[in-house]
Amino acid sequence: MPRQIVFHQTGAADVLTIEEQPLQNPGKGEVRIKVAALGLNRAEIMFRMGQYIEQPQFPSSLGYEAAGIVDAVGPGVDNVSVGDRVSTIPAFSMVEYGVYGESVIVPAYAAARYPDNLSPAEGASIWMQYMTAWGALVHYGQLKKSDVVLITAASSSVGLAAIQIAKAAGATAIATTRGADKKQALLDAGADHVIVTNDEDLPGQVMKLTSGNGANMVFDPVAGPMLMALAQASAKGGTIFEYGALAPEATPYPLLEALSKGLTIRGYTLFEITGDPACLARAQQFVYDGLASGQLTPKVDRTFAFDDIVKAHRYMESNRQVGKIVVEV
Amino acid sequence: MPRQIVFHQTGAADVLTIEEQPLQNPGKGEVRIKVAALGLNRAEIMFRMGQYIEQPQFPSSLGYEAAGIVDAVGPGVDNVSVGDRVSTIPAFSMVEYGVYGESVIVPAYAAARYPDNLSPAEGASIWMQYMTAWGALVHYGQLKKSDVVLITAASSSVGLAAIQIAKAAGATAIATTRGADKKQALLDAGADHVIVTNDEDLPGQVMKLTSGNGANMVFDPVAGPMLMALAQASAKGGTIFEYGALAPEATPYPLLEALSKGLTIRGYTLFEITGDPACLARAQQFVYDGLASGQLTPKVDRTFAFDDIVKAHRYMESNRQVGKIVVEV
Repeated sequence: MPRQIVFHQTGAADVLTIEEQPLQNPGKGEVRIKVAALGLNRAEIMFRMGQYIEQPQFPSSLGYEAAGIVDAVGPGVDNVSVGDRVSTIPAFSMVEYGVYGESVIVPAYAAARYPDNLSPAEGASIWMQYMTAWGALVHYGQLKKSDVVLITAASSSVGLAAIQIAKAAGATAIATTRGADKKQALLDAGADHVIVTNDEDLPGQVMKLTSGNGANMVFDPVAGPMLMALAQASAKGGTIFEYGALAPEATPYPLLEALSKGLTIRGYTLFEITGDPACLARAQQFVYDGLASGQLTPKVDRTFAFDDIVKAHRYMESNRQVGKIVVEV
Repeated sequence: MPRQIVFHQTGAADVLTIEEQPLQNPGKGEVRIKVAALGLNRAEIMFRMGQYIEQPQFPSSLGYEAAGIVDAVGPGVDNVSVGDRVSTIPAFSMVEYGVYGESVIVPAYAAARYPDNLSPAEGASIWMQYMTAWGALVHYGQLKKSDVVLITAASSSVGLAAIQIAKAAGATAIATTRGADKKQALLDAGADHVIVTNDEDLPGQVMKLTSGNGANMVFDPVAGPMLMALAQASAKGGTIFEYGALAPEATPYPLLEALSKGLTIRGYTLFEITGDPACLARAQQFVYDGLASGQLTPKVDRTFAFDDIVKAHRYMESNRQVGKIVVEV
């Protein structure tokens, strides 16, 4: 019987357990995937802790990104076939589907072929990161060459994806990271500038780097008190995309900066993109084109064995990674 | 010598004093107006208290809206002439110009003729209110018939203007007011629905009135803790315009609602509109057209004498008005 990762209560990484479950058959419009690799996301940690935008129902599976081979399709599926090498687009609710397992079922529209030159680990590292950044920066933000994009938590997979997308558009990417240890890695990843927030004044540095104009776009998954500094670092008419809730503290709204600069603060999740078929298709094509041209290149930080899922989650929580954490199955 | 209203320190209404000052001559690009009426705005109270987006320099004048007759023009002025009946558009900084006086000087581009059928009191009650609401609802919000617009502090002059603009577009206007005493006046002013926030649950009522969809647009000058309720009352993909800072409390950012609904919270002031000549011209034409068609009709709540400026400010602070408070000079 295939093994699945499940949890029976919210909490720290060790709530995750591995259980054998009977092989499931895909229902109407669903496909079954024999999994080779899992891409980990912060969303799963938030979900595991009960701090995500949706709450688990126990026993709960979890996980958005898996790469593998389709080994069964349900009725009415025509976009993929048995034998296809696919990875999963996070276009579903983790309450309904979870891909942390040896054999998983997802809606057929969430299964997409990935380029032959990518490994399964890389295939499980493309959709969440590139589509999330594409939706904010390109689709809503209308990213252009003259833009200065401030990217916080830049060493995350989505942060690195945002750097690549900003650079592909010819824009200026300013990355932030807490400690100096990741500075070089972020420069190597393409950031034009890196601000080490433990040591440097974020708004002051951004203003210095932009001749006092500030950043036109901010792409931030942290929120919390730092939103005030991000507003101070923003240009007149700038947009701050908030796409996560990593900060444990409450988030103050920077009212006076917002009024005096005409700032837009936009709450955003990938589900706005994946929930709209036309938009999803454009996002998908953008990723395919970027992978083909080499402007987008997924970076796998480290891989873990399936049995080490607890260690893999703890590693993500340690914030030592630069890029995607992958579990090989 | 003409009398001017000035203040020498920030504080309560009684910091305002009346002083005689020598008649000034307009400089290059400026006009002088013999004032007949002043339209009061919250902005002046915030400025007087030192809580506005700019700080007074003492001795400070104040005031954005005056109606009167041009009695001198400086070099290079060609949009208005001596003898013209004009009122002032808030297209300047109160640190540089203030119109609470018997004779005032403003930049020529801030002086605009107003329709002959309006009294000076009404002429001093059009630009701030209609342009502020136009910029958010029409220019940025692209107001359309199917929109539900939630208008807080709806009995203010800008609030009433927003109701008129929403109704002119065929949209649904939901007004809020703290006490039940103003409910009928807001219905009479054109609101489709009125929520009395002291007695009723704001998000619950909005959801009930919109079959659970929420408001597409929110137009709010209050901020503070109520922003949370406004986010709860918003529709998926909705926009909340914050155009003031009336609440004394800090404003929490409604992160989880913003993420799950994809909400845009947009800090906004009229200066974005007045600072852009093309945009200002469109706003001005919108107001002229609306006044001519009768879709926009300024409502003067009460008039005060020039000597009673302190009483007029206190009256505004008492929140008893429905519409514009005007000082006749």
